[in-house]
Amino acid sequence: MATTEQKVLITLFGATGDLADRKLFPALFKLYKRHNLQDHFAVIGTARRPWNDEKIREVVCESIDSLSEDDRLKKEFASHFYYLSHDVTDSSHYHVLHRLTDELDQKYNISGNRLFYLAMSPSWFSEIARQLVEHHFKDVSGYTRVIIEKPFGKDLLSAKELSETLTTYFDEKEIFRIDHYLGKAMVQDLLPIRLANPLLESVWNSDFIDHIQITLSESVGIGTRGGYYDQSGALRDMVQNHLLQLLAIVSMDIPKDYSMAEIKASKQAAFDGLKPLTKQEVETQVVTGQYSGYRSEDQVDPASTTETFIAIKTFLNSHRWANVPFYLRTGKKMHCKNSTIYIQFKSTPSHQLFDDAQPNYLLIEVDPSEALTLNFNMKDNISQEKPTFTSIPLTTEAYKLKDYTPEAYERLIEECLNNNDVNFTTMPDLEATWRFVDAIQSAWEKDSSTPSEYLPGTFGPTESDALLTNDGRHWYNCD
Amino acid sequence: MATTEQKVLITLFGATGDLADRKLFPALFKLYKRHNLQDHFAVIGTARRPWNDEKIREVVCESIDSLSEDDRLKKEFASHFYYLSHDVTDSSHYHVLHRLTDELDQKYNISGNRLFYLAMSPSWFSEIARQLVEHHFKDVSGYTRVIIEKPFGKDLLSAKELSETLTTYFDEKEIFRIDHYLGKAMVQDLLPIRLANPLLESVWNSDFIDHIQITLSESVGIGTRGGYYDQSGALRDMVQNHLLQLLAIVSMDIPKDYSMAEIKASKQAAFDGLKPLTKQEVETQVVTGQYSGYRSEDQVDPASTTETFIAIKTFLNSHRWANVPFYLRTGKKMHCKNSTIYIQFKSTPSHQLFDDAQPNYLLIEVDPSEALTLNFNMKDNISQEKPTFTSIPLTTEAYKLKDYTPEAYERLIEECLNNNDVNFTTMPDLEATWRFVDAIQSAWEKDSSTPSEYLPGTFGPTESDALLTNDGRHWYNCD
Repeated sequence: MATTEQKVLITLFGATGDLADRKLFPALFKLYKRHNLQDHFAVIGTARRPWNDEKIREVVCESIDSLSEDDRLKKEFASHFYYLSHDVTDSSHYHVLHRLTDELDQKYNISGNRLFYLAMSPSWFSEIARQLVEHHFKDVSGYTRVIIEKPFGKDLLSAKELSETLTTYFDEKEIFRIDHYLGKAMVQDLLPIRLANPLLESVWNSDFIDHIQITLSESVGIGTRGGYYDQSGALRDMVQNHLLQLLAIVSMDIPKDYSMAEIKASKQAAFDGLKPLTKQEVETQVVTGQYSGYRSEDQVDPASTTETFIAIKTFLNSHRWANVPFYLRTGKKMHCKNSTIYIQFKSTPSHQLFDDAQPNYLLIEVDPSEALTLNFNMKDNISQEKPTFTSIPLTTEAYKLKDYTPEAYERLIEECLNNNDVNFTTMPDLEATWRFVDAIQSAWEKDSSTPSEYLPGTFGPTESDALLTNDGRHWYNCD
Repeated sequence: MATTEQKVLITLFGATGDLADRKLFPALFKLYKRHNLQDHFAVIGTARRPWNDEKIREVVCESIDSLSEDDRLKKEFASHFYYLSHDVTDSSHYHVLHRLTDELDQKYNISGNRLFYLAMSPSWFSEIARQLVEHHFKDVSGYTRVIIEKPFGKDLLSAKELSETLTTYFDEKEIFRIDHYLGKAMVQDLLPIRLANPLLESVWNSDFIDHIQITLSESVGIGTRGGYYDQSGALRDMVQNHLLQLLAIVSMDIPKDYSMAEIKASKQAAFDGLKPLTKQEVETQVVTGQYSGYRSEDQVDPASTTETFIAIKTFLNSHRWANVPFYLRTGKKMHCKNSTIYIQFKSTPSHQLFDDAQPNYLLIEVDPSEALTLNFNMKDNISQEKPTFTSIPLTTEAYKLKDYTPEAYERLIEECLNNNDVNFTTMPDLEATWRFVDAIQSAWEKDSSTPSEYLPGTFGPTESDALLTNDGRHWYNCD
């Protein structure tokens, strides 16, 4: 892991929010502990609340409390934090921000490298971008980069509009659209592991693979996000970004070389193979559900038809994946929280010699644990009978040491500081995924169907099971 | 594991020998402990030495001493043993043996099931067979079976002669030619594991496999067997039987069903693919060695040119294995004792994206440990660099519990008692293997070359390494 010290001034819009507290402060502290951030960095937090430097340092210290026993170190880290209260539409705010920026740049000898982290509602992205540029924040000797949180638009049209506005003010190369699933260890490692093992790559295609399942299931409900969620639903909240990103990574072809450009090109080609479903396919290949009690949640329309669960069967338009179904699902208030990818291999005549042999599959655990497991029919010498099904861990012990595994935000911020954008989403990605999502959304709008109700703690509506059992398959569920 | 009690009278020719003491008594005791042998069995030991019942029971008790703490149990087991001193050519001996056989059959209520175990020099096999038949040992209501130890002949001609004589007296179905390698857990399990896992079986061919290595290496020298060994050499002592049996098992095609008959037919087809080397191929694809000091061993010709090491590169005449080299080697006084099979998979363009990625291989450990290991390029999150080479154990812990893993002789005797001959060698096997061995032997006889000397504790002569390095490959050696 590189430990080159980065010189950077991070301006964090939305510094009083949940994301900053739970993810960003800890991520920055971990980079600090690893000496990627050291003497030449500062963070300006900004948000509407009337905090001050004292207050943000206090919050930072609390946020990172469990990450070190060294109080001096935590305080030293927090001392790099500053706070400005603001209204993002107020031009005068940017004057104050600019003054502080220059002052800290000099104080910490940062050489003009500026990272703007927009951890707030996307509706402000364009406004902030415009103000920053108009107030000459980019006129520096160092780099200017901006990290943008999802959602990037709410359909293809709005995503394009947002992109057009942003690219008026920033170069595409300066824009880092974050999808934190792309920072997870197993997601980042899946491609290199596959490519480095001809034993996997040789069978990573429709000749050997029966189907692929991707499940992102959450045990929690919508929490306090009712206002946003009821407008979005599972399709836009999870499928358009995280789920389709995993689909692209798992299905992409071999890049020409292992450079960022070629990896991105291969992933792009995978997105290009994502064929929008027809209205008829949406009817037969998409199942939606809504958990019982959803309509009573805070800020949710009592007659809401928003889906909190969705399962989709789709095919990719690619030579590699001809006729291989991809089953995707995501839901809230599910039986358990976990994000998994199952690669189920085909059965063969040799396999069928044994009555109870199960098909081989590779289980890729993405979250909360990150692991690779091969499901294999191994012999058991005690019974001396036929092979029995066994889970073989492919992930080494070192891999599982959470101390050493950088968390997603830590990885992604580090990559942004290194100007490595291979794990950020691109506009062509977004166009392909929104096109896919829009097709489903528009089929629904023409349709009057409402999602099926399902009980919290289950695996979604029964129609979701039928989607696979009709094909002679079944979902791999958590215990 | 079946625990049906077997009724059987075992007559053991060569009861005072090393094999009986080290392997057969313990194997029978283990079957006794597992209740496969219980009340209705007896063993008549016979050999030249003037032992008696007392003596053999004493020897049996010593031989199994470490296998139980229950002295009463060990004595009870040993009480089933009887001894007759004999000269196998003396007709009168068979009268005495017959009387005792009838007596014990009645005493233990054995119902006439008779197993003759010939644990002695093959030169007596025909004589004993003839005498047994002439003295009406086969005229019983139960079965008659005969287990024969290797070597079965010293070339194709003598093997055929021996077979013809034996089949004059016994049905082919009554003859069990033992090769104890076929009783080893991993050897017996390799085929079902392969077949039950399409992930293995799909890549078990020349499209995906670069080459296969089989090594049977011993750290000991020839011990007290100089007289036999100097006549035989590594080719006839190890290659003709154990090594080529492993080759057949690893390379065989999928049987039509999982019946004994179909498994044997598939294995037979694998032997049929064994193409005898031409004289020129013997010159370039066979390397022999003799360890320094061999000529000073007891009962060895001081000018002996017998090989104590042999390495062979060969190809199989089969669709599945087109152009896949099989590298075979065996030797005495090698660096370590172990029997292993390496299945090395091909490298691919995806693999070559990583400078230091090593090829995938499957390591099949046959002896002394029995295990399956996949060599895989896994990521290490600590360094966050490219994939690194890792050994993934596919063998579960239960598999490795030696307490539960029946030893080779225990398995094979049990199989013989169950009339299961799938793990015994057949005459067609022997014909194919002797044909292969004879071709090498006859090329040598026309040739005046002598084996290269190698130091004890090494991996054989340097020419053996060259056999692979010339092909851009290398032996996988023990540490």
